[in-house]
Amino acid sequence: MATTQQRTIYTGTFIHCTDLSKTEILTNTSIGVDEHGKIAFITPVDTLSGTLKSHSWDPAEIRHFPPAPNSSKNISFFFPGFLDTHIHASQHPNAGIFGKSTLLSWLETYTFPLEYSLSDPRTAEAAYSTCIHTTLAHGTTTAAYYATISVESTDILARLCRELGQRAFVGRCAMDNADFQPSYYCDADADTAIKASRESAESILAADPTGLVKPIITPRFALSCTEESLKGLASIAADLKIPIQTHISENLDEVALVARTFPGYSSYAHLYHNCGLLGPNTVLAHACHLSQEEVSLIHTTGSSISHCPASNTSLGSGLCPVRELLDQGVKVGLGTDVSGGYSPSILVAAREAGAVSRLRTAPGVETGIHSLSGKSLITTIATTTDNESSATTSEKQARDKLKLTVEETLYLATRGGAQCLGLEACVGGFEVGKEWDAQFIDLGAEIDAGYVLGGGSVGNVQVWKGMEWEERLAKWVYQGDERNVKAVWVRGRMVVDKVAVRA
Amino acid sequence: MATTQQRTIYTGTFIHCTDLSKTEILTNTSIGVDEHGKIAFITPVDTLSGTLKSHSWDPAEIRHFPPAPNSSKNISFFFPGFLDTHIHASQHPNAGIFGKSTLLSWLETYTFPLEYSLSDPRTAEAAYSTCIHTTLAHGTTTAAYYATISVESTDILARLCRELGQRAFVGRCAMDNADFQPSYYCDADADTAIKASRESAESILAADPTGLVKPIITPRFALSCTEESLKGLASIAADLKIPIQTHISENLDEVALVARTFPGYSSYAHLYHNCGLLGPNTVLAHACHLSQEEVSLIHTTGSSISHCPASNTSLGSGLCPVRELLDQGVKVGLGTDVSGGYSPSILVAAREAGAVSRLRTAPGVETGIHSLSGKSLITTIATTTDNESSATTSEKQARDKLKLTVEETLYLATRGGAQCLGLEACVGGFEVGKEWDAQFIDLGAEIDAGYVLGGGSVGNVQVWKGMEWEERLAKWVYQGDERNVKAVWVRGRMVVDKVAVRA
Repeated sequence: MATTQQRTIYTGTFIHCTDLSKTEILTNTSIGVDEHGKIAFITPVDTLSGTLKSHSWDPAEIRHFPPAPNSSKNISFFFPGFLDTHIHASQHPNAGIFGKSTLLSWLETYTFPLEYSLSDPRTAEAAYSTCIHTTLAHGTTTAAYYATISVESTDILARLCRELGQRAFVGRCAMDNADFQPSYYCDADADTAIKASRESAESILAADPTGLVKPIITPRFALSCTEESLKGLASIAADLKIPIQTHISENLDEVALVARTFPGYSSYAHLYHNCGLLGPNTVLAHACHLSQEEVSLIHTTGSSISHCPASNTSLGSGLCPVRELLDQGVKVGLGTDVSGGYSPSILVAAREAGAVSRLRTAPGVETGIHSLSGKSLITTIATTTDNESSATTSEKQARDKLKLTVEETLYLATRGGAQCLGLEACVGGFEVGKEWDAQFIDLGAEIDAGYVLGGGSVGNVQVWKGMEWEERLAKWVYQGDERNVKAVWVRGRMVVDKVAVRA
Repeated sequence: MATTQQRTIYTGTFIHCTDLSKTEILTNTSIGVDEHGKIAFITPVDTLSGTLKSHSWDPAEIRHFPPAPNSSKNISFFFPGFLDTHIHASQHPNAGIFGKSTLLSWLETYTFPLEYSLSDPRTAEAAYSTCIHTTLAHGTTTAAYYATISVESTDILARLCRELGQRAFVGRCAMDNADFQPSYYCDADADTAIKASRESAESILAADPTGLVKPIITPRFALSCTEESLKGLASIAADLKIPIQTHISENLDEVALVARTFPGYSSYAHLYHNCGLLGPNTVLAHACHLSQEEVSLIHTTGSSISHCPASNTSLGSGLCPVRELLDQGVKVGLGTDVSGGYSPSILVAAREAGAVSRLRTAPGVETGIHSLSGKSLITTIATTTDNESSATTSEKQARDKLKLTVEETLYLATRGGAQCLGLEACVGGFEVGKEWDAQFIDLGAEIDAGYVLGGGSVGNVQVWKGMEWEERLAKWVYQGDERNVKAVWVRGRMVVDKVAVRA
């Protein structure tokens, strides 16, 4: 029941990550997007007219992007829209503000007071609309949002997503454990948490028959909830056939407290599993300190991990072992985790994912998946602080393997995120039948001898003459920002248009 | 012998870091900068006319910035210009491109070929002018540059700094050890390295009697040189009374190779010391893996450290123990280390310095200063991968102490850098007698309920109504970029003017 739109032909260079290690670059290509916002065909420009005929598309009724043949010398390409698999829309105003706090003190000092203030609809409207405008401008076409405890405020977030055209999962935070939340910001009891969460989910479901904006069941995290509410929330998800999101193993103090608070379970993941929360539509954020048993359980149940590198760094939480998760077949996407993370940009998350993966190989850093008994890392990279380098070749290869390439982080930012959110058949890449969630990226003109700054650059990206696509993508990831995002579409609808502004 | 300029009154809010832990915020203040680009007085706006009289400044002959009283509601302030204590101008085109390499492979694959290409003056002109324009636009008023092995190309860099008005130290890379460099990019022998370096230094000295752009003796790093050239280079620095810059203990493989190549010395720092290279005007970049003995030697000799967090992360080099260096009284500044570092922005370096300092507190990370015998870290933060948090309160305090606050990273970016480069009496803060090296920062309008994106924001900074200066500075460091830099001055000369462009 998507809105009917004008059929559109997009022409230029298309880049997407076909799998973790493979990036496809289609130059001189046209993609036809039909009246439902779906990709109808992908064809070389040369054979476009034949393709139109075979699809019975009338050239006179078709819109084109760019509107006229692109004569610009700028390096530009279409890229799948980013998926942010973990973002607290309600914390958007605080992005970048965290002092010296770690998770639990950060919640108390910065986060709960801000979220509570969003019970006021006017405040919620300002924070949420700014968040959505901002993330769309940065190329995020799909976001898995945490709202607040307030059903009304959560409804506002869902409405704004619909109005502004962002694909979203919107979750009302369930949190009924008074031991770990301030009394002013806590569900009265499990029953209240469950009822309010159901009410919120049903309201969001009813409001959008197109399914672009969906509810997501959101037990804030284990310590926020009681076993009763965790189980009740799992039932709602099963009943309404909607996904689940929560946090897992972000910080060691949190992990220790979970173990003490729920002594009946062998691990954090097993607690969730026993409450019925794990499954193919469950996204678990952070996962910095998982045991092998938990990773296996997450993999078996088909749950996925939202890797939030900027947040984990800012709060000193830990270094998520992304490579090992991927090697074991766990689905991994990227999350900004605003405002544990300071940036609303998934491009920054990709950059930081690369950084964290490289720091994991630095001397003095030993991270990985540990055994359930605790002490030993199963994946240990030998390191040394000796003046003699004792690393063997195989150790070095093991270290290099931990590093995520630019292309791999872009995969996580698109197709990886789509897998996490159950959207892999729908978005994340350019294939016939997928919906047109895309961004148009402009890296500016190439720099050559005689170049003067400002003469054709877009934002901070500086692509030098002779650079290959691999290097151009590296420039985008490491120097790019929202200025390079010239247009954004969700399900065929243009939701950001900076080209028009410029023209 | 500075050029005479029009006396200027700057009025508004001034922020600077008076010491590591103290940031001073002067509102409704005027600063008078004299005809030599020096701060003549700092006064509350209310008492400006009296101050002008007492200084015998004729109001009719004074220029004002902003030209008319500032009626904008934007949050803006003057801040000392940034000092980049370690940047390879010659690697600027490669920023963001490093693949999976680590230091030694990165040099071979990416760096030497690029630097060699700058032997062509036209290529050098393009790379260097872009680098200077870019760093100035990001608020870098002083840069300690590495050029290339080419004397002619190094002269081009120095000339462009003079023309574009950036305070700079420009160093011709000395590198005569054929074992660690490609034959196409290596000094023929020690004598050649020493003579070319002297020629370059004398040429740069002679070209700028104002002393804004100075030479800096630059043995690339220990492995690039022979003992003979290291000693000869130290003599030039002493003879010409100019500073020295080089690298130290960036990566463990490098440290091990240095130990094997120069077996006669007890450490990397002792090698430099014995060759006469350490002293109060020596800047050592990286310092990720120093022993306590080396730190003591660096402190005793008055040498300083350029901390390059983005580079150390990107190349997986290590996590520099900045807090311990500061605690021991070692001077520390920030470096972008383009292109080991991906960003030419010292604001990004400040952000990344905060990130690295926080990651040092994450579980699985044990970094610090080690004993010379190697194995044990002198500063060890207890960590655990257990499900029980075993960290005691004192351990947690020790961890918290490692974290650099926003204000501390801004101190390193300004006054800390000035100390490293022997400029502490000249720039880095706002005091009478210092030169006017400053940037005018615009954080845009405050966001309140009813805000629409684009309505007053500058770049990605979003300051919300009611935020204090501490939070505004955090927003600047974590969300800011060169768009927030509206004007830049060096020694009183306006070298970047985006205000005029906008008006």
